[in-house]
Amino acid sequence: MRYEIRLSGAGGQGMILAGVILAEAAAIYDDKNATQSQSYGPEARGGASKSEVIISDEDIYYPKATNIDLLLALTQEACDKYIHDLKPDGILVVDTDLVQKLPDGKFKTYTVPILNIAQDKIGKMIVANIVALGVIVALSEVVSESAIENAVLARVPRGTEELNRKALKAGIEAVKKLKKD
Amino acid sequence: MRYEIRLSGAGGQGMILAGVILAEAAAIYDDKNATQSQSYGPEARGGASKSEVIISDEDIYYPKATNIDLLLALTQEACDKYIHDLKPDGILVVDTDLVQKLPDGKFKTYTVPILNIAQDKIGKMIVANIVALGVIVALSEVVSESAIENAVLARVPRGTEELNRKALKAGIEAVKKLKKD
Repeated sequence: MRYEIRLSGAGGQGMILAGVILAEAAAIYDDKNATQSQSYGPEARGGASKSEVIISDEDIYYPKATNIDLLLALTQEACDKYIHDLKPDGILVVDTDLVQKLPDGKFKTYTVPILNIAQDKIGKMIVANIVALGVIVALSEVVSESAIENAVLARVPRGTEELNRKALKAGIEAVKKLKKD
Repeated sequence: MRYEIRLSGAGGQGMILAGVILAEAAAIYDDKNATQSQSYGPEARGGASKSEVIISDEDIYYPKATNIDLLLALTQEACDKYIHDLKPDGILVVDTDLVQKLPDGKFKTYTVPILNIAQDKIGKMIVANIVALGVIVALSEVVSESAIENAVLARVPRGTEELNRKALKAGIEAVKKLKKD
């Protein structure tokens, strides 16, 4: 098992922190191996930002994502820029409001109102990255729900635990609702 | 030019954030390429934590650090655990108080009271990672002082900019003092 995830959005949307939390969920709480990385080339000066996580049952010798299982794109720019390397049958998760033009391909695409859930349901746009983690974990089942919850609670600022727990649950619920519809 | 840096310490000492800031200094403010990564194996459940940064003028095809130019170790456990792969003539930076037993080898070793500077001079232990960045940049000159300052200020919580700027300067000054002695 080797599972590659790329998280992308605008700078300031917390994609690096989301990647760190996901890797820690896998490695510290679920007893798997994980790597988390950012690479910055000339595109680092643009508006889109990405972070990558690889999770495996075995040692990870090659820590670069090249055959992506799941891409999260919170903005159109991020979607256009980082769709490359998503597997033909990979999972594409995009924000309903900010990604209107879907890329060509036969990806399993899920549109989820991630930013809207963060803003209207939780009341804080800043937790959109944690809502996104709930969505990703519910769709991929790459880490357990208890592992992601523990990892979120260990990383978020003290005093914001309840808010972030709600954000995570709201992301998970959004997927369960999608699957029922 | 390819420069590999490994930042290590105890969990909670902010090594990942320090790595992200250093990579952003190089890529966003100094126009170089950079990667920043963590890999977690079975050792992720221990007390020591590391983060790696590679900075290059060219594309970085292999993002794993294997021939390290500079190792920072803020604790003895981190020093013992992460000294492997430091180049024979590489730079080793350790905390004066927490690393008492230096590893065998002919590294260029610098002992700097990083935690003490953070606690006593700046008044907040939590900025030890930013003091460490000042030390690293002053020793390696791998990014410019203005780039690291901009990158620190862009990443730290609003309202803590002045504190963090002081912490960075204190790290830089500590090296200048060492070099004069």
